[in-house]
Amino acid sequence: MPDSSAETPHVLIVGGGFAGLNAARSLDGAPVRVTLLDRENYHLFQPLLYQVATAALNASDIAVPLRAILRKQKNVSVVLGEARCVDLDEKAVHSGVGALSYDYLILATGATHSYFGNDSWASSAPGLKTIEDALDIRKRILLAYEAAELEPDMDVCREWLTFAVVGGGPTGVELAGALAEIGKHTLANDFRRIDPTQVRVLLVEGNDRILNAYPEKLSEKATQHLEKLGVEVLTGSYATSLTDDCLQVGDRIIHARTLLWAAGVKASPISETLGVPLDRAGRVTVEPDLSLASHPEVFIAGDLAHIEGADGPVPGVARAAIQAGVHAAKSIVARLEQKPSHPFVYRDKGSMATIGRAAAVARIGNWNVHGWLAWVMWLFVHVIFLVGFRNRFQVMMGWAWSYITFQRGARLITGHKPDLHSNASEAATPIPVS
Amino acid sequence: MPDSSAETPHVLIVGGGFAGLNAARSLDGAPVRVTLLDRENYHLFQPLLYQVATAALNASDIAVPLRAILRKQKNVSVVLGEARCVDLDEKAVHSGVGALSYDYLILATGATHSYFGNDSWASSAPGLKTIEDALDIRKRILLAYEAAELEPDMDVCREWLTFAVVGGGPTGVELAGALAEIGKHTLANDFRRIDPTQVRVLLVEGNDRILNAYPEKLSEKATQHLEKLGVEVLTGSYATSLTDDCLQVGDRIIHARTLLWAAGVKASPISETLGVPLDRAGRVTVEPDLSLASHPEVFIAGDLAHIEGADGPVPGVARAAIQAGVHAAKSIVARLEQKPSHPFVYRDKGSMATIGRAAAVARIGNWNVHGWLAWVMWLFVHVIFLVGFRNRFQVMMGWAWSYITFQRGARLITGHKPDLHSNASEAATPIPVS
Repeated sequence: MPDSSAETPHVLIVGGGFAGLNAARSLDGAPVRVTLLDRENYHLFQPLLYQVATAALNASDIAVPLRAILRKQKNVSVVLGEARCVDLDEKAVHSGVGALSYDYLILATGATHSYFGNDSWASSAPGLKTIEDALDIRKRILLAYEAAELEPDMDVCREWLTFAVVGGGPTGVELAGALAEIGKHTLANDFRRIDPTQVRVLLVEGNDRILNAYPEKLSEKATQHLEKLGVEVLTGSYATSLTDDCLQVGDRIIHARTLLWAAGVKASPISETLGVPLDRAGRVTVEPDLSLASHPEVFIAGDLAHIEGADGPVPGVARAAIQAGVHAAKSIVARLEQKPSHPFVYRDKGSMATIGRAAAVARIGNWNVHGWLAWVMWLFVHVIFLVGFRNRFQVMMGWAWSYITFQRGARLITGHKPDLHSNASEAATPIPVS
Repeated sequence: MPDSSAETPHVLIVGGGFAGLNAARSLDGAPVRVTLLDRENYHLFQPLLYQVATAALNASDIAVPLRAILRKQKNVSVVLGEARCVDLDEKAVHSGVGALSYDYLILATGATHSYFGNDSWASSAPGLKTIEDALDIRKRILLAYEAAELEPDMDVCREWLTFAVVGGGPTGVELAGALAEIGKHTLANDFRRIDPTQVRVLLVEGNDRILNAYPEKLSEKATQHLEKLGVEVLTGSYATSLTDDCLQVGDRIIHARTLLWAAGVKASPISETLGVPLDRAGRVTVEPDLSLASHPEVFIAGDLAHIEGADGPVPGVARAAIQAGVHAAKSIVARLEQKPSHPFVYRDKGSMATIGRAAAVARIGNWNVHGWLAWVMWLFVHVIFLVGFRNRFQVMMGWAWSYITFQRGARLITGHKPDLHSNASEAATPIPVS
């Protein structure tokens, strides 16, 4: 009905993550036209991204096309394109596919890695935010073992079998645990010259404990579980220098050829184009109802927003983003109905992080739990919140298979591969084969 | 046992495809040290690669790490590296990871695309041989619909919704059938401006019939099945010119923005480094036992070999490669035992190609079958020959889900994405959103 579309208010949502997707879904049946703009064609279930990076799951197990999710919601159009800047006065978002004007805007472009001013570290220690990041990390991990197998110099071989993760939040803990398991179990018998079970994994955290957003007891338990897996946990240690094969942490020098970054996030750069107050991490300071003080038709949701809750800032977790996306959508509907909008209240249902096979830590309200029970709860919650029946089923099957066999189902090295051998040009040198 | 290794003959296998992998497996328990060199870390089940390209399967559903397959066969070392040339006199293969010497060599590096001298066509019309090829083609197909949705010019939109496949062998037939189904079923309700069911798919074949290695009746049936899906089958038509958005076939000009190449293969270029007689496609002419006349310690197996059988050259199919790999391995064992080697005899058990949902053609011996029964046989045979329980299970589940829902489970656009909108620089132009 092209005639009515001129009058129907247009809600533009930028970002198809937890906040943006749930905002779009909440507008089902509302008297608005919705456009969802994302630079990817899928919604990504980020909490399981580390499992793609560590070869346990396929990319498509945790990513569902936005068009498929929103197929039946006829008031939503999905546009594939990258937002570049927001013109608040013109009420338009400029993107790689042209300008999109709006009556209401929900900006939910999320966060990216922060190297705290050391941007040159990014190529040596990649972070984990996108599918491409995960596939790159997977390639680095698997290639490290291949390089070690071919390396005649025992010191260099040792460096290839040393992995360091910077940042002891949930992602860092999950990566470190999985890295240890890959060497100890998955690859244990796959090589002929090296012994993958001799893998060394270090987890480096600046605070005095890992998982410092969790109760202290769970930090302790997580440390114990990690150490049982053979992970060396270094707390109170900040990275001061970082190259492709060396990490300096205080006075300590760690020779490791695979470095992963899980230490910091900052808001996606589009926040800078708004010309409104931002916090230190580039997040947009919002009104209690998530709108901008200067532009009440604009809402910020998810990791891009700095929201002051009763117990301090709302954390950058999936559950908070979902709630904020829904709240922004409801606020728009309230405006259209000339009703007042309500302040956003984050309902914290708890948090959980997995450490490895049959080990996790979880806080549910004031209840702390760890070990096997926490791990089962973690499995359960993550499968429930995955979008799409097929994904739930595939992920459950993948996990069951991994649990029984100790294997990982997605051990492919794809994309460009560098030559592994340092003396590749001297092709006359025979390589050591057993 | 490093002492014995100096005496134990070293068999070097180059290529972990059907021929190389099965050669390695056949040497289980033989008194040899085996090294398997491959540029990828996985064995790829190529007959299902078009299903990755058309978003029905994940890459890891059809690719299994070589190390995992050969884990228990302790006389095999797997080396990740790309072979560059063979020095027959020195008995060494030079690779990206150094030189590997051998006592016996099995060369099984397979085939790549041939553009019959028009190598500039490769970027406009990619072929399908590797996982990377498949992911690139998947991206092109999915992005074509995204571009059509955003395109204001109806003629250009039409070009985005036109797909042409050059080459009417099994791969071309399978791609064309899947392309039609993606528009007619998978994406039918996912867009708001375009109607994906209006997709146009052309299959261009130079011979007077598609599937010309099959009995004539099956070619006819395949054409009928394809036409029922809406595919336009053009036979007796050679591509004479090809650009990013235009294909010339005889006098006919086809405006299509997605072109796929399934027309020709040639041997992988390492054959040229041997300095022995090659056929027109670069394949190595071998002795009846698959060895080289000038170097009896060297065997060629799979698509790299030109093998004259009783009924003409042995075809470049998986079953022939498996048999040749096993034969080469057995010939080496016979040599070691001072027994004579036997000539290779290809046992042709038949061939089959799938056209789409519940439609395939198959020849089993002299029995020709098509339609639903052939399709069920096709499913059955392909699952049986997949390596690894997990893959079989995942593929069966993926197919069952696709069959019930008409959906495809791997619809992710990954890697670098170009900007879709032709006027992206003129960001002031509003893009058409419904």
